[in-house]
Amino acid sequence: MSILAVGTVAFDSIETPFGAAEQVLGGSATYLALAARYFHDDIRLVGVVGGDFPDEYVSVLRDSGVDLQGLEVQPEGQTFHWRGRYHYDLNERDTLDTQLNVLETFEPDIPEAYRDSKIVCLGNLEPAIQREVLAQVDAPDYVICDTMNFWIQNTPDSLRETLQRVDCLVINDAETRELAEEPNLVRASEIVRDMGPETLIIKKGEHGALLFSDNTVFSAPAYPLEDIQDPTGAGDTFAGGLAGHLMREGSVDQASLRRGVIYGSAMASFVVERFGPRQLQGLDPVAITKRARAFRELASIPELRPLQEAAA
Amino acid sequence: MSILAVGTVAFDSIETPFGAAEQVLGGSATYLALAARYFHDDIRLVGVVGGDFPDEYVSVLRDSGVDLQGLEVQPEGQTFHWRGRYHYDLNERDTLDTQLNVLETFEPDIPEAYRDSKIVCLGNLEPAIQREVLAQVDAPDYVICDTMNFWIQNTPDSLRETLQRVDCLVINDAETRELAEEPNLVRASEIVRDMGPETLIIKKGEHGALLFSDNTVFSAPAYPLEDIQDPTGAGDTFAGGLAGHLMREGSVDQASLRRGVIYGSAMASFVVERFGPRQLQGLDPVAITKRARAFRELASIPELRPLQEAAA
Repeated sequence: MSILAVGTVAFDSIETPFGAAEQVLGGSATYLALAARYFHDDIRLVGVVGGDFPDEYVSVLRDSGVDLQGLEVQPEGQTFHWRGRYHYDLNERDTLDTQLNVLETFEPDIPEAYRDSKIVCLGNLEPAIQREVLAQVDAPDYVICDTMNFWIQNTPDSLRETLQRVDCLVINDAETRELAEEPNLVRASEIVRDMGPETLIIKKGEHGALLFSDNTVFSAPAYPLEDIQDPTGAGDTFAGGLAGHLMREGSVDQASLRRGVIYGSAMASFVVERFGPRQLQGLDPVAITKRARAFRELASIPELRPLQEAAA
Repeated sequence: MSILAVGTVAFDSIETPFGAAEQVLGGSATYLALAARYFHDDIRLVGVVGGDFPDEYVSVLRDSGVDLQGLEVQPEGQTFHWRGRYHYDLNERDTLDTQLNVLETFEPDIPEAYRDSKIVCLGNLEPAIQREVLAQVDAPDYVICDTMNFWIQNTPDSLRETLQRVDCLVINDAETRELAEEPNLVRASEIVRDMGPETLIIKKGEHGALLFSDNTVFSAPAYPLEDIQDPTGAGDTFAGGLAGHLMREGSVDQASLRRGVIYGSAMASFVVERFGPRQLQGLDPVAITKRARAFRELASIPELRPLQEAAA
């Protein structure tokens, strides 16, 4: 029983209206693995960094108990570096600079010991690379996948091929509309699910998340936060918490998925409170449970008396 | 036990990507009253129309059982006419034309028989006119109020004066941020509630609604609709359903407010399915209850097993 987290391990340089941070630890695999680790003890990371990647950042991952056998270090190379700026309402961001560096030639080589991984989390990467990963895993029970508008626009056929092997796609509302070429989210979700993923989770940031699965829809609220410092990594943290929870339950039925969405949302609500992944270091499991349960209270609808009684 | 609905009674001319409608029955008081009528039998309307207002539209209101003693007809005047166009995603609209006409000199004269009204719904009007209405009602138990960016920007002091007499303010997220001059919705809600309203309900359209009351927050989902034809009147329909439900329950405690938000959301989810208020004529109460209960299923979070057990 294990989770494989594949994605970027990066330097993030972030500006928000509430501060700035230079070259903090970032990347989708980082957030995925750190979040999942709170739910399960066998979390395996696959990614690549350059010789400039500091021991201190490796330690953050290692000390959290993440298996780093799959972290490739290219001593001559430079680590992937993303630079971005968030607007005042934090829902929009501008990418100021992207230095792909070692990511440009990344060919994931999954360690032998990782091939029996049960849940595979494919962070946002070129769809062909996501498939290369899947080709090196024996028989994953469940594949969770992220993507972005760049791949939707530039490698649509390759993305479709990857989606055929995905069980659960986790993207935002704009990406869903773009992928489906349909503005109505309900219809768009059907179109996307016809591409392969049995389950579609739509992340809506401060508006929560939607889970489309079986013939039902689940609407998860967002936790109302007074202080959001940095939304970076929230989506990957969500997916990591979801994957970790599903592994913990050993089930992907409707109830497990709903609980997974809530635990993922709870993890994401913590991570945005500070710059970078700092909140994912040393978080108290009791606090995580408490926050997840606060979502239940937040969304709780009391029993409803039928309307016809009033008319009588 | 009665509800007073004050606001516009109007002609609406609407364009959406899915069609157009010319001079349909519209106005905040229209939607408020028609929606509330499904929950309670004593719904009183206050508004003004011109001599051009057709008997057919008067009949829609009268046949629904709305008390029209407070509908002033100015035979020489023209009815308020709003013309607007919705964008493809239906979240944004442009006002193409506003002919205030009889509204320009509207001075609400509340009939004697209305003065004992228990719940007062103040549709979006100049704040001074909203206060004139309140001054003519003996002792309302509960005042629900709407406003818009125009009054927030142009009559801030008058709006503040009105808000001091309001129990429940129902506005959208942009209006909340603008009124509070604070981008964070949680902090903005505190600022707005300090202006008077014990309860703030933030309408977020396709993202549902937030209820801030006591020390708690309630997040209501939006009903996932495949076909939305016309969002006009959704907010007033929501407020009308809320008011009607609160009157029916005879309570404004937390549970009643949550149920009211759900019944209001259910009513709004019907009205957007067709142009104008057509859906509010002859709606089946059983269908309303069924839809309200679908919100409970949509938002239902199963019990959550604490995280620390997994670590053991």
